[in-house]
Amino acid sequence: MQIQPLRGFREFYPEEMTARRKVIASMLKVVESYGFRETESPSLEPLELFRLKSGDEIVDGTFSFTDKGGREVTLIPETTPAVARMVSQKKTLVKPIKWYSFSRLWRYEEPQAGRFREFYQVNIDIFGVEGIEAEAEVVAVAVNMLVALGLKEEFVIKISDRILLQRILQLYGVKDLASAYRLIDKRNKLSKEEFVSEFDKIASKNMNDLLKAIEISGRMEPSLSKLMKIVPEDKIVNERIERLLRLASLLKSYGVEEQCILDMSVVRGIAYYTDTVFECYDAKGQLRALFGGGRYDELVQLFGGERIPAVGFALGDAVLELLVRRAGKWPKEELKTSYFVLVTDRKYLETGIRIVENLRKIGMIVEYDLLLRSMSKQMKYADKIGAEKVIILGEKEMNDGRVAVRDMRSGEQREMELKEFVG
Amino acid sequence: MQIQPLRGFREFYPEEMTARRKVIASMLKVVESYGFRETESPSLEPLELFRLKSGDEIVDGTFSFTDKGGREVTLIPETTPAVARMVSQKKTLVKPIKWYSFSRLWRYEEPQAGRFREFYQVNIDIFGVEGIEAEAEVVAVAVNMLVALGLKEEFVIKISDRILLQRILQLYGVKDLASAYRLIDKRNKLSKEEFVSEFDKIASKNMNDLLKAIEISGRMEPSLSKLMKIVPEDKIVNERIERLLRLASLLKSYGVEEQCILDMSVVRGIAYYTDTVFECYDAKGQLRALFGGGRYDELVQLFGGERIPAVGFALGDAVLELLVRRAGKWPKEELKTSYFVLVTDRKYLETGIRIVENLRKIGMIVEYDLLLRSMSKQMKYADKIGAEKVIILGEKEMNDGRVAVRDMRSGEQREMELKEFVG
Repeated sequence: MQIQPLRGFREFYPEEMTARRKVIASMLKVVESYGFRETESPSLEPLELFRLKSGDEIVDGTFSFTDKGGREVTLIPETTPAVARMVSQKKTLVKPIKWYSFSRLWRYEEPQAGRFREFYQVNIDIFGVEGIEAEAEVVAVAVNMLVALGLKEEFVIKISDRILLQRILQLYGVKDLASAYRLIDKRNKLSKEEFVSEFDKIASKNMNDLLKAIEISGRMEPSLSKLMKIVPEDKIVNERIERLLRLASLLKSYGVEEQCILDMSVVRGIAYYTDTVFECYDAKGQLRALFGGGRYDELVQLFGGERIPAVGFALGDAVLELLVRRAGKWPKEELKTSYFVLVTDRKYLETGIRIVENLRKIGMIVEYDLLLRSMSKQMKYADKIGAEKVIILGEKEMNDGRVAVRDMRSGEQREMELKEFVG
Repeated sequence: MQIQPLRGFREFYPEEMTARRKVIASMLKVVESYGFRETESPSLEPLELFRLKSGDEIVDGTFSFTDKGGREVTLIPETTPAVARMVSQKKTLVKPIKWYSFSRLWRYEEPQAGRFREFYQVNIDIFGVEGIEAEAEVVAVAVNMLVALGLKEEFVIKISDRILLQRILQLYGVKDLASAYRLIDKRNKLSKEEFVSEFDKIASKNMNDLLKAIEISGRMEPSLSKLMKIVPEDKIVNERIERLLRLASLLKSYGVEEQCILDMSVVRGIAYYTDTVFECYDAKGQLRALFGGGRYDELVQLFGGERIPAVGFALGDAVLELLVRRAGKWPKEELKTSYFVLVTDRKYLETGIRIVENLRKIGMIVEYDLLLRSMSKQMKYADKIGAEKVIILGEKEMNDGRVAVRDMRSGEQREMELKEFVG
């Protein structure tokens, strides 16, 4: 009886795993080079942990249930609440705290391109830094994670500041900020006319200038200059622009300014983020967001700790895979084997196994044929598992205390002393 | 508000993770050197997948629930059923199939020493090999996984054969095999007298010889000779002993015979395994089993495929950690940092970041102080994160185009040209 995996859940065969492992390893190597340290938290948590942050609506989008002990629990849809809890409950942590996790997550959503019900996320956070240096560090690590995968011009990070946007909206007489954010958030789903007409209902003056400000999207420094010229002179606006200029300058020091733009329309929902927000998209704008992040200075407090400023983001595996594949940078899905030891006769099995074990002990990937098949079948198998070299224990050579070593790429074959392998 | 993790679920802080990662990497490196290829399957599966193999009682021991689409699902308590499905559904797989997975698993059981509700398992299987060569290969990889962690005499693998045991029981007139297995399985929980008296009820002749046979536990070859002398001459017994002698000889070729014994009392439940069974325990017998495994030639068929012989085992992280810690071999829990770049003044920040980024790009783990604190505070932080070297950007040296590099172990400090780091 065949029982299929649940919809939105994936299985990975070995060839696929080789490529996935390469991608994950490349990214995490960059993350670790930045001094982010790995943590891990449970896959199943009290539902309350997420209600606290996201309210009741979170329940609909999760795999949540009542366990056998009567507890309301959920498969985790994100790691940030658990990470915030870990920060808040351990008082001896040295700041700044730079943590990452690589976790499996679950969301009860309709599967589609770039979205599964079970997926992975690299989650990266810095706790304890008020300054924009933290934003620069996480944006830089994000850019370099993608660069390590061979991406360069294929993505763009759109940066904004919610305090700046809020102040600008207020300066233009917008009182219903929540509606304004929602409207800006779904701007790309509306026609220009619809957007203007909707916005007109909540703004009170200079609609044109306001819309021009919101539409700013481009390299950080020129865009910030442009913004300054449009919006009315204001202390808060100046401070926030100053802060973003400082970020632009830091991003230049990191050498990642080319992948970053200011985009005043980035809002990222309503709650949670306090000021800086950013989102990463494929440059062609064909896919869902690769990741989103920002500053959330109030969250640790919510989980019972003191107030600890924080900046972070989470990068999922699904959209990333789509983008890397489209860019032609997905690693080759192939098995690798250093040596295949071909035992031509059962009487050489003991020697064969000793050779195999000696090579494995020095870290080589080595196989021999557990089925002890014919030489031609073994050669075929060696080829299928991508063996680089085949060591052949044949009668003629073995009688002379030698083995034949065939290079599977060049096809060249030469004899070597048996004692070099079993010595 | 503090919301604790669920009981039986663990959180890992960075220092702990460094040690865990080392342990996992050491083991998986050995597994890969044996040519086992990684696969991955969902964490949540239709409950039916496990019912099929283990019957209804499985439900009690799992985190299972009805999802929002009305499907009975469960967090996976083991990976074998999914692996068997993956084998059965893909017809193009080249045999033998040698797979491993490293997965998080969940069981609704009472937490205790060496048992959590959420844990990890390395699961290793060979599909497509009837011969005892498969058993030898998986026992050898198991031994060498543990040896790679620094264990040697701390563990023992007890090997038996259910067909041999069954035949012996039949030869002594035992008809109720299920009861006999159950009794043998809980032998260590009974006194000798209780065991004998219980067994007496189901055996019909030569109880003494039967008990002697079941009690055999020791190095494989002498134990098999002893067994031959005790039990009546029988064709099946001879065949099975022949097979185990062949395994003993293979294990010698692998160089793992010292960690393996014959133990006729190893049964491993009632269902699932068809002949060879083995269990690994700490040598002192203080802990729960480290792992269990064996041959299960009927399982793939059960999941809708053709009959494919299989041998495998699964090693959990919990008992393993206890044993490795007791043996004093658990890796040091410590953070590592290659360089800390100490920026003494904000005016050197840009240069500092460029140095940091250059070193990160060549794979070094590098940090600078995102809080731009005083020199003494930065030094303290560098020490806390285990920095090996600190590059100091001080006024005097910077004016000469130089930086100071301090070796944090020896305390030695020398000057180097700035251009060596930013060139």
